[in-house]
Amino acid sequence: MGRKLKQLKLKNIQITDKLFGEYVRKVSEKIIPHQWKILSDKLEGADPTYCIHNFRIAAGEVKGERKGVVFQDTDLYKWLESVAYCLDGGQGKVYEDLADEMIGLIGKAQEEDGYLNTYYTVNAPEEKWSNLVEGHELYTSGHMIEAAVAYYEATGKDKLLNIARKNADLICRVFGEKEGQIHGYPGHQEIELALVKLYRVTGEQEYLNTALYFIRERGKEPNYFLEEIKKRSGFQFFPEFDDYDLEYSQAHKPPVDQETADGHAVRAMYMCAAMADLAEELGDEELLEACRKIWNNLTEARMYITGGIGSSGFRERFTTDYDLPNSTNYSETCASIGLMMFGQRMASAAGDAGYYDVVERALYNTVLAGINIEGDRYFYVNPLSVVPEFCTRHTYMQHVKPVRQKWFSVACCPPNVARTLASLGQYIYAQDEDAVYIHQFISSKASAHMAAGAINIEMDSELLQTGCVTLKIQASGRGKIRIRIPGYAKDWKCRKDQEVLEQQVSRGYLTVELEPGSSLIELDFGVKPMWMAAANQVREDAGKTALVKGPLVYCLEEADNGNLLSQIYVEENTEVTEGKPIEELPGDVPSLIYPGMRIKNKETGNCLYSPLETEKEPVMLKAVPYCMWNNRGEGEMLVWQKVKA
Amino acid sequence: MGRKLKQLKLKNIQITDKLFGEYVRKVSEKIIPHQWKILSDKLEGADPTYCIHNFRIAAGEVKGERKGVVFQDTDLYKWLESVAYCLDGGQGKVYEDLADEMIGLIGKAQEEDGYLNTYYTVNAPEEKWSNLVEGHELYTSGHMIEAAVAYYEATGKDKLLNIARKNADLICRVFGEKEGQIHGYPGHQEIELALVKLYRVTGEQEYLNTALYFIRERGKEPNYFLEEIKKRSGFQFFPEFDDYDLEYSQAHKPPVDQETADGHAVRAMYMCAAMADLAEELGDEELLEACRKIWNNLTEARMYITGGIGSSGFRERFTTDYDLPNSTNYSETCASIGLMMFGQRMASAAGDAGYYDVVERALYNTVLAGINIEGDRYFYVNPLSVVPEFCTRHTYMQHVKPVRQKWFSVACCPPNVARTLASLGQYIYAQDEDAVYIHQFISSKASAHMAAGAINIEMDSELLQTGCVTLKIQASGRGKIRIRIPGYAKDWKCRKDQEVLEQQVSRGYLTVELEPGSSLIELDFGVKPMWMAAANQVREDAGKTALVKGPLVYCLEEADNGNLLSQIYVEENTEVTEGKPIEELPGDVPSLIYPGMRIKNKETGNCLYSPLETEKEPVMLKAVPYCMWNNRGEGEMLVWQKVKA
Repeated sequence: MGRKLKQLKLKNIQITDKLFGEYVRKVSEKIIPHQWKILSDKLEGADPTYCIHNFRIAAGEVKGERKGVVFQDTDLYKWLESVAYCLDGGQGKVYEDLADEMIGLIGKAQEEDGYLNTYYTVNAPEEKWSNLVEGHELYTSGHMIEAAVAYYEATGKDKLLNIARKNADLICRVFGEKEGQIHGYPGHQEIELALVKLYRVTGEQEYLNTALYFIRERGKEPNYFLEEIKKRSGFQFFPEFDDYDLEYSQAHKPPVDQETADGHAVRAMYMCAAMADLAEELGDEELLEACRKIWNNLTEARMYITGGIGSSGFRERFTTDYDLPNSTNYSETCASIGLMMFGQRMASAAGDAGYYDVVERALYNTVLAGINIEGDRYFYVNPLSVVPEFCTRHTYMQHVKPVRQKWFSVACCPPNVARTLASLGQYIYAQDEDAVYIHQFISSKASAHMAAGAINIEMDSELLQTGCVTLKIQASGRGKIRIRIPGYAKDWKCRKDQEVLEQQVSRGYLTVELEPGSSLIELDFGVKPMWMAAANQVREDAGKTALVKGPLVYCLEEADNGNLLSQIYVEENTEVTEGKPIEELPGDVPSLIYPGMRIKNKETGNCLYSPLETEKEPVMLKAVPYCMWNNRGEGEMLVWQKVKA
Repeated sequence: MGRKLKQLKLKNIQITDKLFGEYVRKVSEKIIPHQWKILSDKLEGADPTYCIHNFRIAAGEVKGERKGVVFQDTDLYKWLESVAYCLDGGQGKVYEDLADEMIGLIGKAQEEDGYLNTYYTVNAPEEKWSNLVEGHELYTSGHMIEAAVAYYEATGKDKLLNIARKNADLICRVFGEKEGQIHGYPGHQEIELALVKLYRVTGEQEYLNTALYFIRERGKEPNYFLEEIKKRSGFQFFPEFDDYDLEYSQAHKPPVDQETADGHAVRAMYMCAAMADLAEELGDEELLEACRKIWNNLTEARMYITGGIGSSGFRERFTTDYDLPNSTNYSETCASIGLMMFGQRMASAAGDAGYYDVVERALYNTVLAGINIEGDRYFYVNPLSVVPEFCTRHTYMQHVKPVRQKWFSVACCPPNVARTLASLGQYIYAQDEDAVYIHQFISSKASAHMAAGAINIEMDSELLQTGCVTLKIQASGRGKIRIRIPGYAKDWKCRKDQEVLEQQVSRGYLTVELEPGSSLIELDFGVKPMWMAAANQVREDAGKTALVKGPLVYCLEEADNGNLLSQIYVEENTEVTEGKPIEELPGDVPSLIYPGMRIKNKETGNCLYSPLETEKEPVMLKAVPYCMWNNRGEGEMLVWQKVKA
């Protein structure tokens, strides 16, 4: 019982990676100041968000109308969380005063009893907790609590933590199975994992209990949401949810009975992350088994090769097994971040590094694709095939943007990418009493304290180039290093101080015993470009192949290969050459070069349909990492290429 | 100026066709009684439509609340129109009394000044004409007028025609450019083509003027719709239209300046049909040229090979050039009926039979697919590739049904199919002073009167089998027959009384001079199965081929070929054999048999993604006409098959 693995403190990790270092730096340099301007309505040309303004009204500092979406407060909370991680990592010191000022403002906006939500406090004080389906009160509190925990851990300051506790205490009083309590649960999950975090930093058992209550109560009969909707006689914020589908918010049956990844993908992932947390903290095998079922369904039938999830552009949600359209899908950046959170917790709860294969897939592909290399534009939606002129507004393609956007009216993704990058270290390193765990191969320096003493690690990763990783280790005692061996490393080798290690891999980990002093671990994961295929039931990818190398999925871009990419064919077993990295792209990651052909139909004037008569033309193709697409202007992009039959 | 071609009277046409005869019979046998039950809320298990009930309230016969969609009245009007065509064709006599009774009811529901709309009369009398964007008042009147004209022509009874005139006279007073008139136009076009029909039967010039006014006023600056929405401060019936896109209703610029087929496909087609009518009646070259531009864009870049139109499942609309997704598209049955209407009018206005190639494509494929062979189930949406388990509700596939449905809450398609089939003769025959025109090759008997005397035609069409058509003609004078030579008939032959005719085809017509007495015309269109390809810009169809024979597009069904149809490849130039007609399907139409292969990926347990390793297997394939798919149970269907590269 209790937590098995703990992440290393961010202050003890320094990211030095050629690729990720670039992106992480953008968080404090670009994203945080940019997002601040947006929150405070100081960005020229951008629509006002009213975010800070709303807090000032709720705090009684100014008079006016509270505006923006019902969960607009979360923008500030996510900003604070990102600032906290930056501070923890030794960056963004310049924002600390501003953060403290905002925390003061949040405190003033909090009501006497701990209630905190500018929409309901200002606009609808009589309607608190009456619209759990849409109102996002618990979701908003969750993000506030996450920010509070992060800020406390980064700075040691407890003002926001106390605000969070007071709010969480209220939630624990209001919700529960006792008489007089509301027997409900959030429309958008988030509070659950936040309460677990708050429990971990405060030790307050009630937070864990209430998190568990929300998971256990969810989806029971008679259904709370349906009763609530009936009582309210309709939808207030989102009229399009008329004819509500309980699967959308995973409320169609209790989470422990769910066997497939259903509904809104971000909600599903936040819920599953909390379930895995609770399974670990409580040693609850039933919860863990439920998580495993959903995880298996998700990764065996409903996930893109890029780690994107949510096949439906309409309602940002899962559909059904093997339904993985490449151009109309949603694959929200936030959903893949949720997938990373879920996988990280599953690895810890189940004690298996294999889950990090999926975390890595999501991180290196969809999550990184969510932001441009300058750090000031974002994708919300991440298709695997884009034809820019087909991305038309007011149509079925309305959600797909062919170029990254400056911001969004519902701006969950940019700050979510920011907080993920700013806290990247948590996905690289973890520890228990005896060992430090290495889950990702991202160049960095880290230090930790184990029972046997201190340990310093310097990881130099060439994973994306040669597939080799070296670990320079200084240990003051006899600890262990457990290194995840990725699923794609079929032919890996490891040497310690020049000597080949022949250990077995157990639950995805190679365990290396350390003696006091310095040691050098050299890993070669035998990473080569590979042509991948999807399961036969994935109709969309039948007769197609995707090129991967290690964790990276590659794609073809118009910039390198011209347009009409759907005409391109490759032969099975085509040999791939590693080309020079593209100059404009960061991280020194090679492009991949290979021969293929274009097959087109003979042109016949303006005829849309004419007798089949094809022409073949050999071509040389150049693929680049999917995560870096659309950093060189607008153009077509394609992951799944046709295989010459 | 004035009309060039007139359709033959339905009473002078008798459809004897093996295929269409089956469907046409269903209209009076099944559709009309079935639809009547629905309109009168007598169908067990079906949700009430309130259609007749609403008229009884408006007529003052009963008290109660007027319910259903705002344009619910049109269900009765379309039913009446279908009844009228059946009566005209000598069928459905048993419904005439009921129709007369309904016409009486409609008369009682009409207000003193001619206004006729149960929603506004009962629920919102103060709001008449205030919501042209959504209110469908003019649309509803249009369908009433069409029914009135049809009923008058079929029966000679003028009660409904007089109701229609009174309503049309009101519309002509209310709308127009004069001071005090509303300078607006309908949100959903339909009144325009109805007013032209009413003009043709009454000779009242004002109807033509008002139809022209609606077309000419549409899309002018300042935009009437935007002003109206501002005044109403929002959307009343369709809140999802917030952030209104003027293109949706073709109101973004004047129709004469539009160069592409945009927005809601049915609205676009009804508008274009009226434009073509007006172009012909007024000899207006500007209107005709605008029609030509839209037609060319539509047929050269935005139409499926099945004659389906409207690529976007969201909002039932056009998207952009070459964006033709095969599984998520809308391709509403009604839109293809609209395309038939537009094409028919263009052929007449431009004097070119070529337009009927598209009419035929739409009729034989998408329109016929809209109804099952029993005549009691319907498709609203017509994709070209279906995997039943992927058609999930509450997702991006919500609109796609893998099996035909009994009815729809917005039930435009079933009665639209009914009135099209019941008036099928109008698409087969037309005439002018000198000639009878043959536009479709559907077995039938027809008679007409030309300047030179009477003519009787007996058409025996084997178009779908041997590609041969014979015409037995009895003429009392020296008229002409103009026969459309279809675009697919590259190698046609014609003999008249055993003698080969060598005439040139002009504007798509072969002209045959007739002497008094009997003659036998034998046509052989050289129809063979053909492998077709789409233009290279159609990304969705790259590397794929569709099998057609004459006007019919063929498809693969799971019933004949197993599932996972996306694994199927055919070689270029694969020889196709004509197989036996499928026993369960009507019309004695051959199936098509050919060799192909299945290429699948090697199975690797539960892995969603694994290294590419394919296996090939030769298969024999059987294709059936697309219009008849899903008449043998639920299963996969595929039009565009992969070509072995």
